[in-house]
Amino acid sequence: MVQMGVVDSKTGKEEKLSVKELEEVARELRAYTIVGIHAAGSGHPGGSLSAMDLIAGAYFHALRHDPKNPCWDGRDRFFLSKAHIVPAFYAALGKAGYFDINDISTLRKIGSPLQGHSDRLKCEKYGIEMSGGSLGQGLGISVGDALAARLDGKNYRVYCMMGDGEQQEGSIWESAMAAGHFKLDNLVGIVDKNKLQIDGNVCDIMDIDPLADKYKAFNWHVIEIDGHNMQEILDAYEEAAKTKGKPTVIIAKTVKGKGISFMENVAGWHGKAPNREEFETAMKELNFDLKKADKMLEKGTQLREKLEKELERKMPKFSKNYWWNETENMKAEMIPTRQGWGEALAEMGSDERIVTIQADISGSIKISDFEKNKPERNKRVFSVGIAEQNMMEVAAGLAKEGKIPITGTYGVFASGRPWDQLRTTICYGNLNVKIGGAHGGVSVGPDGATHQALEEIAITSIIPNMNVFAGCDYLESKKITKASTLDVVGPCYVRFGREAVPAVTKPETAFKLGKANVIRFRGEKENFADAFDIVLASNYKNENEDLAIVATGSMVSEAMRAAWILKKEFNLETRVIDVHTIKPIDEKALISAMKETGVILTAEEHQVGGFGNIVAGVITRNKSSEDKLVVDMIGVQDRFGESGESWDLMKRFGLTAEFIAERAKKLVGKK
Amino acid sequence: MVQMGVVDSKTGKEEKLSVKELEEVARELRAYTIVGIHAAGSGHPGGSLSAMDLIAGAYFHALRHDPKNPCWDGRDRFFLSKAHIVPAFYAALGKAGYFDINDISTLRKIGSPLQGHSDRLKCEKYGIEMSGGSLGQGLGISVGDALAARLDGKNYRVYCMMGDGEQQEGSIWESAMAAGHFKLDNLVGIVDKNKLQIDGNVCDIMDIDPLADKYKAFNWHVIEIDGHNMQEILDAYEEAAKTKGKPTVIIAKTVKGKGISFMENVAGWHGKAPNREEFETAMKELNFDLKKADKMLEKGTQLREKLEKELERKMPKFSKNYWWNETENMKAEMIPTRQGWGEALAEMGSDERIVTIQADISGSIKISDFEKNKPERNKRVFSVGIAEQNMMEVAAGLAKEGKIPITGTYGVFASGRPWDQLRTTICYGNLNVKIGGAHGGVSVGPDGATHQALEEIAITSIIPNMNVFAGCDYLESKKITKASTLDVVGPCYVRFGREAVPAVTKPETAFKLGKANVIRFRGEKENFADAFDIVLASNYKNENEDLAIVATGSMVSEAMRAAWILKKEFNLETRVIDVHTIKPIDEKALISAMKETGVILTAEEHQVGGFGNIVAGVITRNKSSEDKLVVDMIGVQDRFGESGESWDLMKRFGLTAEFIAERAKKLVGKK
Repeated sequence: MVQMGVVDSKTGKEEKLSVKELEEVARELRAYTIVGIHAAGSGHPGGSLSAMDLIAGAYFHALRHDPKNPCWDGRDRFFLSKAHIVPAFYAALGKAGYFDINDISTLRKIGSPLQGHSDRLKCEKYGIEMSGGSLGQGLGISVGDALAARLDGKNYRVYCMMGDGEQQEGSIWESAMAAGHFKLDNLVGIVDKNKLQIDGNVCDIMDIDPLADKYKAFNWHVIEIDGHNMQEILDAYEEAAKTKGKPTVIIAKTVKGKGISFMENVAGWHGKAPNREEFETAMKELNFDLKKADKMLEKGTQLREKLEKELERKMPKFSKNYWWNETENMKAEMIPTRQGWGEALAEMGSDERIVTIQADISGSIKISDFEKNKPERNKRVFSVGIAEQNMMEVAAGLAKEGKIPITGTYGVFASGRPWDQLRTTICYGNLNVKIGGAHGGVSVGPDGATHQALEEIAITSIIPNMNVFAGCDYLESKKITKASTLDVVGPCYVRFGREAVPAVTKPETAFKLGKANVIRFRGEKENFADAFDIVLASNYKNENEDLAIVATGSMVSEAMRAAWILKKEFNLETRVIDVHTIKPIDEKALISAMKETGVILTAEEHQVGGFGNIVAGVITRNKSSEDKLVVDMIGVQDRFGESGESWDLMKRFGLTAEFIAERAKKLVGKK
Repeated sequence: MVQMGVVDSKTGKEEKLSVKELEEVARELRAYTIVGIHAAGSGHPGGSLSAMDLIAGAYFHALRHDPKNPCWDGRDRFFLSKAHIVPAFYAALGKAGYFDINDISTLRKIGSPLQGHSDRLKCEKYGIEMSGGSLGQGLGISVGDALAARLDGKNYRVYCMMGDGEQQEGSIWESAMAAGHFKLDNLVGIVDKNKLQIDGNVCDIMDIDPLADKYKAFNWHVIEIDGHNMQEILDAYEEAAKTKGKPTVIIAKTVKGKGISFMENVAGWHGKAPNREEFETAMKELNFDLKKADKMLEKGTQLREKLEKELERKMPKFSKNYWWNETENMKAEMIPTRQGWGEALAEMGSDERIVTIQADISGSIKISDFEKNKPERNKRVFSVGIAEQNMMEVAAGLAKEGKIPITGTYGVFASGRPWDQLRTTICYGNLNVKIGGAHGGVSVGPDGATHQALEEIAITSIIPNMNVFAGCDYLESKKITKASTLDVVGPCYVRFGREAVPAVTKPETAFKLGKANVIRFRGEKENFADAFDIVLASNYKNENEDLAIVATGSMVSEAMRAAWILKKEFNLETRVIDVHTIKPIDEKALISAMKETGVILTAEEHQVGGFGNIVAGVITRNKSSEDKLVVDMIGVQDRFGESGESWDLMKRFGLTAEFIAERAKKLVGKK
């Protein structure tokens, strides 16, 4: 491993690459980045490539840092606010010698420190300064770090790289105001202005221009450059270092996907991995030896194989493999719940009251299904950019005037980012705003912890007037979306997921908003869904089952599979309760299950207890002293998620039917 | 009641007051405002008075509205974003005839629609368009409303009044960007630029200037005026109405406290009510008949008396009155828990690692105790203005460099407003940031729902790596603050309250972070605190009590008083468990209580279940089938708080010892 930092922290010796060398290094880093993203099968090439020259100029010329001494106190700090382009940083840090550059092929795999969005704790020795993945946060932590340097009289400099779409986040402007107010001349902001965000051109989605005027009005020194001209880049870093009494922002005009012809200026390459053919073309265009690239891929493959074995070893074992579609019968079709949400919006869209408010990831979460092939609906679509707080407020204003606004983004950003807006404007005012919380759970996969919403049930259901739902499959999600939109007047949060999950209900399956379903395994069938009876809990007649599994969302189908395992392996009868309406919860269904089975196992793809404790609260408050009861809970054990393949993560976090069945068996034994 | 709107919505007839008449009306409205705030004994005169001329010009000249038809669809919408100055609006709306102006003396009293911060649902017929109280939200809902008008081809105009300190909130800039992008020329922003925020001069705390340049860079038309010159005000409204293709912001230079000599330009009058003497002086200066003013006060007094009787009637009755300090013995000193937090900061402050990050309400929450009389600590104090997201990020940056940053603001704004920052930057990065969540619970009092944090336990404790605490009294809060700051490396949230509560522990009282205390009533004493034994739960020997009350924060002293009542009235022995460390919770203490008493009553000044369900989760998961158990929970019943006196609200929400004792008695009966 060649160490190629800028400073040897022991001797103080500095070594900076020349413009020509930097251009060469940037080309090489682009190749590493693509190797990583291709190996991962997902990631964000567009912004990684647009920022690459700025990063190369920083890490191999402007920035004082020492890969042999990653936590060297004298180092300049570089905060990556647009953390989805972290592959570009891994490339630079690996090349500089913080770790073996071949590790880049472990990107986004379970067990790798190279998470889909940067994880400070896993990568502290790898030169990563912050955990990121939620936009608009890096500038503030940079301000704090720059204040710390000033307080301690240290002369390191603080860099913060942001995206241009990211400038839509209000938190940026809080931090920008503070940096100007504190006259932080040890702080350099870098805006990688590649003019594209996921939904299209930044100027069309939510124009950030005139950006230079904005920063000037926030009391910054502004430098505008061509972000692919290495001499301009180095000059800008130098001018920033010389500027006193003000923070400096370098607004760099760049090309998204720069360096790979078919990616350049194409919004679709924001978050997509190249396939084999595209990978080979990319390596050729980047003049990078394909054999060397292929060799690099091996490390990732090895890690994956090792992990697969480990996951397999830890899985509870039964007389046969009950995994989805691994048996001859019990086949299930796999469809993501987000599709149910999208289809509902599309089908309800002719209702003129319905409007949608989009916050930039419209295709991924399916909110854009509303207007797909229906140009007459475009006037009812409002794109507010990456600005979740404003999304909720705009929705509130529209709701006030009788519209039914549908908002949506990833669950973390739909619930936590605008939490106070949800509470005060929407819920306190009891406004009829509908919120789609996409990408719930660890099954989100390779994007990693920041994008895996695991707290929304707890934080939304605690707000008065809020209604909270999670469908068990595609079809139930669709039914929920329609009913909560059209039959409820008041704020509604619908949780759904990214990954395809088993379709376990049918159009004719019992469904009533606010009422739980009871699901009973009746015997193996050709199709998984046919093996179960599903009735409204209020219509269910007690069969004195051995236990009840109370599940919500994606965990209902796992609970159903567990019921099958429990019957086949241990002859145990299970009452599965599908709680699609989390608030207001169907107390009667839970109380009956408690009184009639005495064994309650809750299951949630969420921080454990967020849902389970609500169930525990209901049953204990309604329990008599004579009612026998044992309880256990399945869920994520009070920890953040991580990058990996969806189903691998479900196994890793102990959320699949096998784990449920094992815990259920044990719990029944306590009866 | 004289109807004095601008439009008769039936006939379309318009009637606008002249400049001279408006000046006279503004004087009258100032008097009504002061009547209301004096009657309430709290409120925000400074900003109400600075905005008064702008409001008079709007409601009696520029704005199309009809008090006889408050929900008239053709009305112009006026959103009050800085909702703490709502008394000025009540004055204008009452004067216009939406309600009896004498109602203003019911301001901030239980049962009055005139909440301390505006409540849309209570005041829809009173001309109030939004629920507010959390800054930075009004501009976004205005953008949504303006979009709705455009979508439906309606020609009403949308006004939004903001403060200058409020411009520090990033959410403002998200909305400003959207308004510019959407070219909303039916939208008018008004900034009441009175140059003062709670902590001092806006330009010193967090400078917002050059404000006009900022709005211009966000693509707004800007008009700067003297906010006390009525002609300039009317001209500005007219110019705004004529401006096409852009939203307009009117930046009005005003004087905080305008019209009352002793209030003008004094930051201290931001949130303080005039006493009798000051009230009389104010009426004189405003040339308002004191007798008339006194007559107005009567309605408030009557409402208060009526409510007091009603509260008294609903209180559970016992053989005697056990209320705090109403008996001859059992005396308790009353000290707010916020004082414990402040004193801890003051005492720890010599530790050079400790820095504080302030967000404008420093005196009220006691964070400024850190540097009080210690000018050498000022360099370790960072004021970021009203910008909670940035507060958390700045703290994160300082923590990263080895500092121990203390942040603090009202609990809603400390937990929910920056929730995603807490989750991603701080907790995912496991940074050593300490968060003071002030003003927890309904006992906050007259400020009302928006300022009464009732969800923080749920939303903070669900985040991995977060530690959560709530002291039972002043002294325990102090111990918690010190221990969590100095002995825990990682994020800590400390909840505390505004109102003085009984001091029930002593310096020598058992205390260990992470461990619950068991509290037992042993017989009446001169001092309340002496009547109880308090030991670490791990050192407690089972006495087979009749029940356990598991309480946190302010509810511990109420639980103790309930234990006294239960013993004296029903000869029941109660194990009170003080859970000051909510996360990680002392599971053993809860399990022992469940196994040994079989009766668990939880008590929280919080949405019920936020704490109680956590307890229910622990005990049910650790319960054997044989363990008998009945559970009940005391807390706020899934609803927002409201304005009123602190102890009245504790009664109103069923949180005092009398209610606990009544519920406990019933629960023991179920055993």
